[in-house]
Amino acid sequence: MDAEGLYRNIRSKGSYLCVGLDSDMDKIPGHLKKTDDPVFEFNRAIIGATHPYCVAYKINTAFYEALGSKGWQTLEKTTAYLRENHPNMFLIADAKRGDIGNTARKYAQTFFSTLGFDAVTIAPYMGRDSIEPFLEYPDKWVIILGLTSNKGAADFQYFHSGQDNLYLYEKVITEASGWGSADNTMFVVGATRPEELKRIRKIVPHHFLLVPGVGAQGGSLEKVSRQGINQQCGLLINASRSIIFADSSEHFAETAAAKAQQMQQEMQKVLNGLGGTTV
Amino acid sequence: MDAEGLYRNIRSKGSYLCVGLDSDMDKIPGHLKKTDDPVFEFNRAIIGATHPYCVAYKINTAFYEALGSKGWQTLEKTTAYLRENHPNMFLIADAKRGDIGNTARKYAQTFFSTLGFDAVTIAPYMGRDSIEPFLEYPDKWVIILGLTSNKGAADFQYFHSGQDNLYLYEKVITEASGWGSADNTMFVVGATRPEELKRIRKIVPHHFLLVPGVGAQGGSLEKVSRQGINQQCGLLINASRSIIFADSSEHFAETAAAKAQQMQQEMQKVLNGLGGTTV
Repeated sequence: MDAEGLYRNIRSKGSYLCVGLDSDMDKIPGHLKKTDDPVFEFNRAIIGATHPYCVAYKINTAFYEALGSKGWQTLEKTTAYLRENHPNMFLIADAKRGDIGNTARKYAQTFFSTLGFDAVTIAPYMGRDSIEPFLEYPDKWVIILGLTSNKGAADFQYFHSGQDNLYLYEKVITEASGWGSADNTMFVVGATRPEELKRIRKIVPHHFLLVPGVGAQGGSLEKVSRQGINQQCGLLINASRSIIFADSSEHFAETAAAKAQQMQQEMQKVLNGLGGTTV
Repeated sequence: MDAEGLYRNIRSKGSYLCVGLDSDMDKIPGHLKKTDDPVFEFNRAIIGATHPYCVAYKINTAFYEALGSKGWQTLEKTTAYLRENHPNMFLIADAKRGDIGNTARKYAQTFFSTLGFDAVTIAPYMGRDSIEPFLEYPDKWVIILGLTSNKGAADFQYFHSGQDNLYLYEKVITEASGWGSADNTMFVVGATRPEELKRIRKIVPHHFLLVPGVGAQGGSLEKVSRQGINQQCGLLINASRSIIFADSSEHFAETAAAKAQQMQQEMQKVLNGLGGTTV
């Protein structure tokens, strides 16, 4: 999928919501635990309930790996299920990989060929040759960590070079945006930092930004949209726990649908305001 | 295992070699491909041949993940085999994870509890709260990327702050060395940068350093040892491709043993020179 295709899906659904399948076995409703693959059953129900309101699903690999090879099978079943039933969904592996070239090539194979994701999140610390192997896949994306939503973002991402007059996160986004294009590269920018989102939008006016941190982490959908949107939307806003774990009863899927729909409706209003001009 | 235990193993084997099981299915000898689990058979043979000459094995998760859940099963079988047959080996998951707290907690569970590794490599970009969940496990280690061996290391790791008078990699090592201790934290420093190794040794005189890049990537064992060693050795030098893929014939294991032994003999000489004083 290219940026144009993603924007088409966003317009047709009136949504730039990404639902995060951080499907923590410890938190899924008790009645599902009697099934053979509780996490898959949970995912299937969440997908069934939320797919009208989102354009992307983000699978956080940690929650699957913690269950060993069984968890990795659940990951495979979930991506296969999504591919078969919702072929237009943009599928993100939130894996935060990043390694030297020959290893990066294997990770690209893992997430793009073996698992069929559209995109994978990447930590930029190891530089260009850790990212290039992913850019060789047509219609696939890297989503590079820029400025993250967590407290620890302050430790290194704000490391400042007087010579460049840049924070590290600005340096990363400036450099890495030149390695690929706005059709295969996005950046992660935390919703907890809407002011910086505006600065980042100046560096990469045309790139999509993946924005986690709305919901459980406290970011505001309205603020993020105001500061981050561009003419082709340019935003995927992720919510995980605030949707999928909003309700631990047997009605969890309906509650998740309601939460997703509520976000979609806010997003629809923002998109209506877009028209053909910059908001 | 604590630092004292690791040093004891190093002295008793006369080796600070870590063998990297970057067991790429595309490169393993043809005759093994007829077996049910070629990568596991390859690993078992390599371990059987090289274990007298090394104190650690490093499993690069990318090469297993590329094979899907089957690869993850091979990873589980390999760690279980090592734990059972070589309980004193220091087992490193070269996974380069790094994510917000609740996710980091799941990765710690994955590598320490589910898979039984002693250590996991971590990318530092997301800061302290992405690393702390790993430090909560007694006798387990984080190995944080400091200065890596690849060309792309130059892109961000040398980002320089005039205010701190530090490169980013120095900032990372300075800060992160204060989060844990020399008994649960190591740093990755590429063998291709022996001069910087000396600078880093000044920042963390007592920490172990994991040094990749000897062998296929061109680093020198002798230079690295000279610049990086401390009174308790403080080095794990990793070689992957130069040992495990030195020979693609049916004699691959004997050749791997010979390559590992050759490194061990060089290391023995260095260790003999250590005595009780700083080299």
